[in-house]
Amino acid sequence: MKAGDDEGEQSSQQPGGEAAGGKVQSKLSAAASAASSSGSGWTKVSCPCCVSEWVEPLVLLKLGPKVGPETKRWVIKLIGAPQKDGGAGLLAHPGEDACGNIIVVSAPRCTLLRAAEELGLCKTYENGDMEAFSYSDRDNFKDSDNMEVFLTSAERQYMVKYELDGLRAQRDLRVPGLSESCVLLKRDNIWRKLGSFGVIVDTLPLHNPKKLKELGEGWYAGNQLVQPLDRINEYFGSCVAFYFSFLDFYTWSLLPPAILGMSIAYFSGDVQREMVESVSGSKAAEDQGEPGLVISGHMVQAVFSMIWSTVVMELWKRRSSSLSYRWGTMNLAERFAEPRPEFHGELGVNPVTRRVEPLFSEGQRHLRMALVSVPVVGLFLGLVVLGMTCFYWGEARVQQLHKDWDSLLSKALLYVPSVLHIVYTNMLATVYKTVAQSLTEYENHREESAYENHLTGKVLVFTFFNYFAVLFHIAFFKQDVPLLRKRLASLLIMSQLVNQVTEIVIPYLVDRFISAPNRMESEDDPEEDKFRNQRSLPPFPGLFGEYIELLVQFGYLSLFSCVFPLTAVLLLLNNLTEIRSDAYKICKLFRKPFYPPASDMGVWQIAFEVLSFVSVVSNCWLLVLSPRLQKKCQDGEMSSTNLLLGAVIVEHFLILVKVILAALIPDEPGWIRKKREHIEYTSMQALKHQKLQTEES
Amino acid sequence: MKAGDDEGEQSSQQPGGEAAGGKVQSKLSAAASAASSSGSGWTKVSCPCCVSEWVEPLVLLKLGPKVGPETKRWVIKLIGAPQKDGGAGLLAHPGEDACGNIIVVSAPRCTLLRAAEELGLCKTYENGDMEAFSYSDRDNFKDSDNMEVFLTSAERQYMVKYELDGLRAQRDLRVPGLSESCVLLKRDNIWRKLGSFGVIVDTLPLHNPKKLKELGEGWYAGNQLVQPLDRINEYFGSCVAFYFSFLDFYTWSLLPPAILGMSIAYFSGDVQREMVESVSGSKAAEDQGEPGLVISGHMVQAVFSMIWSTVVMELWKRRSSSLSYRWGTMNLAERFAEPRPEFHGELGVNPVTRRVEPLFSEGQRHLRMALVSVPVVGLFLGLVVLGMTCFYWGEARVQQLHKDWDSLLSKALLYVPSVLHIVYTNMLATVYKTVAQSLTEYENHREESAYENHLTGKVLVFTFFNYFAVLFHIAFFKQDVPLLRKRLASLLIMSQLVNQVTEIVIPYLVDRFISAPNRMESEDDPEEDKFRNQRSLPPFPGLFGEYIELLVQFGYLSLFSCVFPLTAVLLLLNNLTEIRSDAYKICKLFRKPFYPPASDMGVWQIAFEVLSFVSVVSNCWLLVLSPRLQKKCQDGEMSSTNLLLGAVIVEHFLILVKVILAALIPDEPGWIRKKREHIEYTSMQALKHQKLQTEES
Repeated sequence: MKAGDDEGEQSSQQPGGEAAGGKVQSKLSAAASAASSSGSGWTKVSCPCCVSEWVEPLVLLKLGPKVGPETKRWVIKLIGAPQKDGGAGLLAHPGEDACGNIIVVSAPRCTLLRAAEELGLCKTYENGDMEAFSYSDRDNFKDSDNMEVFLTSAERQYMVKYELDGLRAQRDLRVPGLSESCVLLKRDNIWRKLGSFGVIVDTLPLHNPKKLKELGEGWYAGNQLVQPLDRINEYFGSCVAFYFSFLDFYTWSLLPPAILGMSIAYFSGDVQREMVESVSGSKAAEDQGEPGLVISGHMVQAVFSMIWSTVVMELWKRRSSSLSYRWGTMNLAERFAEPRPEFHGELGVNPVTRRVEPLFSEGQRHLRMALVSVPVVGLFLGLVVLGMTCFYWGEARVQQLHKDWDSLLSKALLYVPSVLHIVYTNMLATVYKTVAQSLTEYENHREESAYENHLTGKVLVFTFFNYFAVLFHIAFFKQDVPLLRKRLASLLIMSQLVNQVTEIVIPYLVDRFISAPNRMESEDDPEEDKFRNQRSLPPFPGLFGEYIELLVQFGYLSLFSCVFPLTAVLLLLNNLTEIRSDAYKICKLFRKPFYPPASDMGVWQIAFEVLSFVSVVSNCWLLVLSPRLQKKCQDGEMSSTNLLLGAVIVEHFLILVKVILAALIPDEPGWIRKKREHIEYTSMQALKHQKLQTEES
Repeated sequence: MKAGDDEGEQSSQQPGGEAAGGKVQSKLSAAASAASSSGSGWTKVSCPCCVSEWVEPLVLLKLGPKVGPETKRWVIKLIGAPQKDGGAGLLAHPGEDACGNIIVVSAPRCTLLRAAEELGLCKTYENGDMEAFSYSDRDNFKDSDNMEVFLTSAERQYMVKYELDGLRAQRDLRVPGLSESCVLLKRDNIWRKLGSFGVIVDTLPLHNPKKLKELGEGWYAGNQLVQPLDRINEYFGSCVAFYFSFLDFYTWSLLPPAILGMSIAYFSGDVQREMVESVSGSKAAEDQGEPGLVISGHMVQAVFSMIWSTVVMELWKRRSSSLSYRWGTMNLAERFAEPRPEFHGELGVNPVTRRVEPLFSEGQRHLRMALVSVPVVGLFLGLVVLGMTCFYWGEARVQQLHKDWDSLLSKALLYVPSVLHIVYTNMLATVYKTVAQSLTEYENHREESAYENHLTGKVLVFTFFNYFAVLFHIAFFKQDVPLLRKRLASLLIMSQLVNQVTEIVIPYLVDRFISAPNRMESEDDPEEDKFRNQRSLPPFPGLFGEYIELLVQFGYLSLFSCVFPLTAVLLLLNNLTEIRSDAYKICKLFRKPFYPPASDMGVWQIAFEVLSFVSVVSNCWLLVLSPRLQKKCQDGEMSSTNLLLGAVIVEHFLILVKVILAALIPDEPGWIRKKREHIEYTSMQALKHQKLQTEES
């Protein structure tokens, strides 16, 4: 058997993957193929440099239940055909036999390298610098002969998806084995059409069990303080790696406010008393002659958390840019690549790349956003407010009723407004998600990342509003600091308990009792079955939920922490377990997700920064409401106008400080700036050089 | 005579310059040269393509009084030597004879084209697009064979200065004819050293009288509504052209606030009465039963001027970017060019361009700024405040004295504080300017533009503070709106009168009675004398004064206009004459200035934007102080706390609107963005291509 003979040679090339890989290979080649391809079951490659005995299965395609062998053969041929003939230039394997309903897809070296250039990935050049990868210059990049070292596993799998998604019909054609109505027109996106015809039901990247196990051991299994970010990037891609990097960075940066919060809680009598009140619910004894410091723990906490949030976000930007350099995503060429499959418009010449592709004017997109998206989002935000108003109104009515009747029925009625409100909020959120998706689709963004950012932005605004509307209402309208403190403490403790349960306990139980029995596959099962098993896992729900959790935390901390100084401590404890539970979740409980290379956190970066600005306003306002200052006002020591005036001046000063801080801390470290400028300089030089070359030739 | 014979051929090449040029040429060639060069008096060029009969005199060098013919010959040789031999690669003409104290410098085609590439200028490519000029691809750029069409006159003259400034000694050498102590060390900047030895006293670009006359006719002479911006750019360079473009744009954009201001002044009784008061100085009759609208003219004016200032600045950014595309300065390569002559540091390899040059770490520069520049600037701002405090204290004392004594002496004493304050302020400003210069020099900026921007920024902050400290003091501390209105009106009217006098009347008188007699040169005077005459004009004082005038105007309008609605009208009238007087000044009364190509207004852009943010704060505060609202407070219809709270909410809302507006209006028009992205794309492609080429060769 060929695969066995090669094992020795392979192990030198691909450390860590040889055992699992060898097995996959042997299984797949053992399954005699009925497809038109020859060799070990995989389709043939057109290019001599890509011929290799070892083919790594990357992506699993699940075919629809009614797809006949004729159609399957056509799809395999399409995947295997060279790109110049309208194919994807990939490798396809029909699985066990031509009738099975899966196709395993891999990619030859040339296709991967071309995709790496198209996506604008940077890789290590022979001189050790990161440079934009160029296919024609491939031999000068380090490890460019070994795809499993050169490209990360996430990149290879995303590239397969990228090639499949980019397939367009070169002429009108009919898919063999399907009904007459299933016709592909010229320039139709083939993959989307096959999906709508029911030919392709699912496209999922395959886990590599051995690598996954190694990754998990260095990540959530032990008590490591440092997360294996590079390996996360290798296995799950830079989007996921950026999330975990941020989680890591943010958790560490919680240390200073946690220490400050604890010392304030320990040393400040005021704060201790208030916290006891908020937990016990009863009013403790009044302030008994504590020295009347004007600067209370509240103020220290408020000013500190404002400065802290700015510094943290600025430092994160620097970290983020050095990570994106390290991972080769600093120079992504999404703008210059093919538009996303769903993008539509009239065919024309792209003024930037001079390629023929669908065009859609920026102006029209802005018009759609302004006239459709913004009003609709506003409407939903209005519905949230309406819901809250109705809830307060209902509660007041019900309490009145309860006072009047004082029966068991009226007592039960007391819960009705809350329940109705929760149901209403959840329904609204579900409807909104669908609406946001269609709105963003309607906006017709050219790039995948633009689409994602606009969708995330929409959902984000709504979710944030949903979470914080009540707190803002209490702080700004009711102006009731004790209630705010109570609400914040209960939200913090409750939401963390709920999160811990949903993120650790339930996943563990599911894994132990539901998934584990399914995983009881014998070692001798064909690889195809193992691949099929991966389909039984639910798809990864995306990072939105994880990010929003962090954002809400960050909001609690920076907006309201001055009323409850232990916030940071609670968050720190929570995040230390959060890191592990999130890691466990993504590794064990879901299918592996496809993630495109990303150069930063996208719209989340902006969300955190906006929050850190709002925090100045909120903290200054809470300072005005702080009990000690209010008491002074009541005692006539200070007019409330002067108090307000003081707060406004402090606020403006702090905003100024924030703006200056943000301007002074450069967004990228000096060495990255130099590298970037060097790339700019050389490409400028190259442009001049090239014009000459074109002239001469 | 050669020059005469060529006249016909020249006229086809250089429209508009033939008559003047022909004359210059004939004069210069008539003066038999004693220098080592041959031909028509100019030094020889090394490159065959640059040999031409017609040489345009660009720059005049004035030698020191004690410079002997030996030194002059050495300087001429240095200017004429090719760049690879350490010379400037320019053309030098010794003037009348070798003993005369001027050298006329011009530039051959190759040197100009190389400099155009080094500076990163964009020029029209054969396909009509603007592309970064590349020397090796010169033949594909339109008009690249005729320097007088291809490069603007300002560019050609700046390039001569650029080449001279960039001269560095290739080895230790002694300048012939100078004392032993005048030695050039290796890598010394020759031009700076020659200046310090007293060899070169002055370097000035030469006016082209014919072109200047044409430019003036289309600019300040007639009643044109549109300024000839392209011709200004051609003659004076993009810095000056940007100033006049902004002045033009800003003047037109004053129309809406002027119309609004007039209608408010016409329709609002309140405002009319207040304005009469502020002009007459006496208190007019009280408000007599005008319908108690809550929204007064003040509020409309305040909100309008906040939105207006944002929109104007955003639209200007768009205009600015299309102008810089039009003038080929969108892609300047200053970062990649040689550092400015004054830049010093340890020799090393520049990590961006990989050239050997002095290096100075960014971190050290920041340290110097933070530890030296910021405290010193702060100190001077403190001195301004101190001066103001002393002035108020002195005035109070003197008034007290006058009350006590009531004599003529005490009456005279009343003026002492004002006079002392004016003297103090002026002295401070003079000292500060010198200090700012040495601080910026100490910061050791690599690029000329960075140096200029930091210097301008420092002076700007101080000047602005100086102008507005009194107004802010009245508005925020004294909270005296009538005084503010009176002060603003008198400042506006006074400063405009003063400006008109200094900018129109005095220049005219000077030109008529002092300059004109000097200009009484006969047509037969040698050209050298005419050149020498240009030296008699004072050097152009720079655009700082012009910009600061606009900034202060903009400040009056956006910060305080709600107390005096006719501000915009007065400014509009002022600016219509300002355009003409500024144009007259730069054309007639000063030497032609050297200006490097610029892609925008630099630091002034930021200053205007910052001002437009401060305007929100100031306007909201003035709203709180507005008489009608204050009256309501006094009548008890509204608590002052609620009033303040309302103002704060309005302020935050308007800042939000401003931020959203600024984010929504793109900084560059769509077509420019596409062009820019296309350039980025092609240079990315070229980089990949070039690596391949390098490999193959």
